[in-house]
Amino acid sequence: MTMDITFLGTGSAYPSPHRGASALVLRTDGECWLFDCGEGTQTQLMRSQLRAGRITKVFISHLHGDHLFGLPGLLCTVSLNTNADPQQNLNCVDIYGPRGLRHFLRVTLGLTGSQLLFPYAGRSQQPFMSWSPLLTSVQKRDGSVWRLMTAESGPLHQQEQPGRTISLDASTDCYHLFEDKKFAVKAFRLFHRIPSFGFCVQEHERPGRLKTELLKELGLKPGPLYGRLKAGEPVTLESGRVVRPGEVLEEAVPGRKVCVFGDCSAALGEGALRLCRGADVLVHEATLGDEHREKALEHGHSTPGMAAAVARACRAHRLVLHHFSQRYKPRPPQTDGDGDGVDELRRQAERALQNTGAEVTLAEDLMTLSIPLKRPS
Amino acid sequence: MTMDITFLGTGSAYPSPHRGASALVLRTDGECWLFDCGEGTQTQLMRSQLRAGRITKVFISHLHGDHLFGLPGLLCTVSLNTNADPQQNLNCVDIYGPRGLRHFLRVTLGLTGSQLLFPYAGRSQQPFMSWSPLLTSVQKRDGSVWRLMTAESGPLHQQEQPGRTISLDASTDCYHLFEDKKFAVKAFRLFHRIPSFGFCVQEHERPGRLKTELLKELGLKPGPLYGRLKAGEPVTLESGRVVRPGEVLEEAVPGRKVCVFGDCSAALGEGALRLCRGADVLVHEATLGDEHREKALEHGHSTPGMAAAVARACRAHRLVLHHFSQRYKPRPPQTDGDGDGVDELRRQAERALQNTGAEVTLAEDLMTLSIPLKRPS
Ligand SMILES: [Zn+2]
Ligand SMILES: [Zn+2]
Ligand SMILES: [Zn+2]
Ligand SMILES: [Zn+2]
Repeated sequence: MTMDITFLGTGSAYPSPHRGASALVLRTDGECWLFDCGEGTQTQLMRSQLRAGRITKVFISHLHGDHLFGLPGLLCTVSLNTNADPQQNLNCVDIYGPRGLRHFLRVTLGLTGSQLLFPYAGRSQQPFMSWSPLLTSVQKRDGSVWRLMTAESGPLHQQEQPGRTISLDASTDCYHLFEDKKFAVKAFRLFHRIPSFGFCVQEHERPGRLKTELLKELGLKPGPLYGRLKAGEPVTLESGRVVRPGEVLEEAVPGRKVCVFGDCSAALGEGALRLCRGADVLVHEATLGDEHREKALEHGHSTPGMAAAVARACRAHRLVLHHFSQRYKPRPPQTDGDGDGVDELRRQAERALQNTGAEVTLAEDLMTLSIPLKRPS
Repeated sequence: MTMDITFLGTGSAYPSPHRGASALVLRTDGECWLFDCGEGTQTQLMRSQLRAGRITKVFISHLHGDHLFGLPGLLCTVSLNTNADPQQNLNCVDIYGPRGLRHFLRVTLGLTGSQLLFPYAGRSQQPFMSWSPLLTSVQKRDGSVWRLMTAESGPLHQQEQPGRTISLDASTDCYHLFEDKKFAVKAFRLFHRIPSFGFCVQEHERPGRLKTELLKELGLKPGPLYGRLKAGEPVTLESGRVVRPGEVLEEAVPGRKVCVFGDCSAALGEGALRLCRGADVLVHEATLGDEHREKALEHGHSTPGMAAAVARACRAHRLVLHHFSQRYKPRPPQTDGDGDGVDELRRQAERALQNTGAEVTLAEDLMTLSIPLKRPS
């Protein structure tokens, strides 16, 4: 199964012509999961090889505008284009995010509702989107600004399906978002100016190949029994001999692990590091260079050195930096120019990861990173 | 006084890499007024010669996402950059728009408030923005989607100044938004899927030049009396002779008139046409070609022929078309290619305006159109 990440926006604070606002897509076999959705994400999607209509899940790390303001427009546009193919209406988009997101979407989509709904008049029994589980915000702040964030009650938007609130699992110190046949996805808390979350996508381990030579020796022919063995069930031969999967399967192939951190200057609690242990790809923000560490901390952000410390603690195989201050221009392609210092960010992370074997990658807008299958361990 | 319009987005429904979502800036002597603010407007501003920090007024024609979803991000970014120059804090941004806009901004800015407020902690006595007058929506719809639009009560956002609701002036059938030393700005109702408005910016007539030769003959020397005459006051000479301004002033220079229509398939009432009579520039949507008239009408939009009929009825001097369906790609510069039929839109409008002397312009993203001073009439 192919798996890759496309970075749609790698800039912080706001979109610019050089760097879009935060958004990336994790793609597996054509299904697209969107992580954050800053203003302009739909336009960046059009510039990429990806199709907005393929997005089945959206994860919002936190409610800062540079991670959020593109979502209403994206949903409207997907809705417009969905109209052409009524079958697609059956697909729901699951939206995961901090408390307050539901209210934000109700108001923004409610106001402009006629546009979203226009093609669907009379089809409300086939809802287009469901913002199922929404994270509970666990950090607390006082002040009037926050009062809005608790206003999650009230009538559903016309095309909204009831959501569910996911609580922190105390034993693992994280949020269990969902698990399906291929993946388990969890979220963990980060320290930022407002409640912010990271996401851990863990692919399930897959059984090793069948040792077909050995099976032939045992007298087992290709057929349903092969499937049962591969699924982990023991099989009894006519002779009464029990064949256990462990005997006839090569070693299992570990699942890949991709961790996407929201804005942060640190993780909250040990749960995050435990969860991200051995990540194949760890995507972390690096808003400012190490020389601006104080300023980064003041704003709840990280430097390459801080991101590398996280990667080192998790024993990640690859650290991908993004969410760069707009002062760092992309490195001009096919040149040795260093893009106003962005390469120095890479060097800072590399220095902090010396002797770990971890690789450092600087994300750029529209860059795609493949995540190859792992070898049997 | 220089006056020009820069089109930031000329596409309809959503932004694309070819055409941004709706936004244009009317600039007079460095002051910028923004009309509509679709997603991506702040990025388009960065691509243009204009500076977002110069925006003093925002006019939102209607609450469809392609005219609105860029506003929260734009305000956040202006706010971030304003921080660098504390003097600028004294400038308020006046935001005019239909009922519901205030609620939209409170929720979107409230949620992401910490970002907007961050640089201003403790400076709330110098408010950054005031959404002073908001239009009342006059068209009515029923249904749950609309209930949100009436929720304009509730606490103000931390940096919000009390607004005012402007009611329809029955005698002129339009809304008097404001009048200052240079301009009077009014709004009028349009027929669209939701309440939509157009705006008429009328520059005041300016007095003609002083006939200095004549003044000398009368024995009047340059000084304060010249200013009083120019301001329209009569002046009494020592001889007792009264000099009236009309005697010593050249003919007055008529003010320029710029009309910007929101999405519509027609104006509501005669007030709009009366108000726009003789417009120097009339900016009107032309979402689809005349051959798609039925579809345009169904969606509350116009074709070039329909826009031209408005321009003809108003005796406008120049009709500028924008808000093109994304199917119409821009004409490649310096070629004779016709950009997937967009030139045909111009031809359709020109045909409908034959013998009127009115010029037709197709707006393109980042195009700037000068509006020269008028000659004395
Ligand atoms: Zn951010
Ligand atoms: Zn943030
Ligand atoms: Zn529109
Ligand atoms: Zn519209």
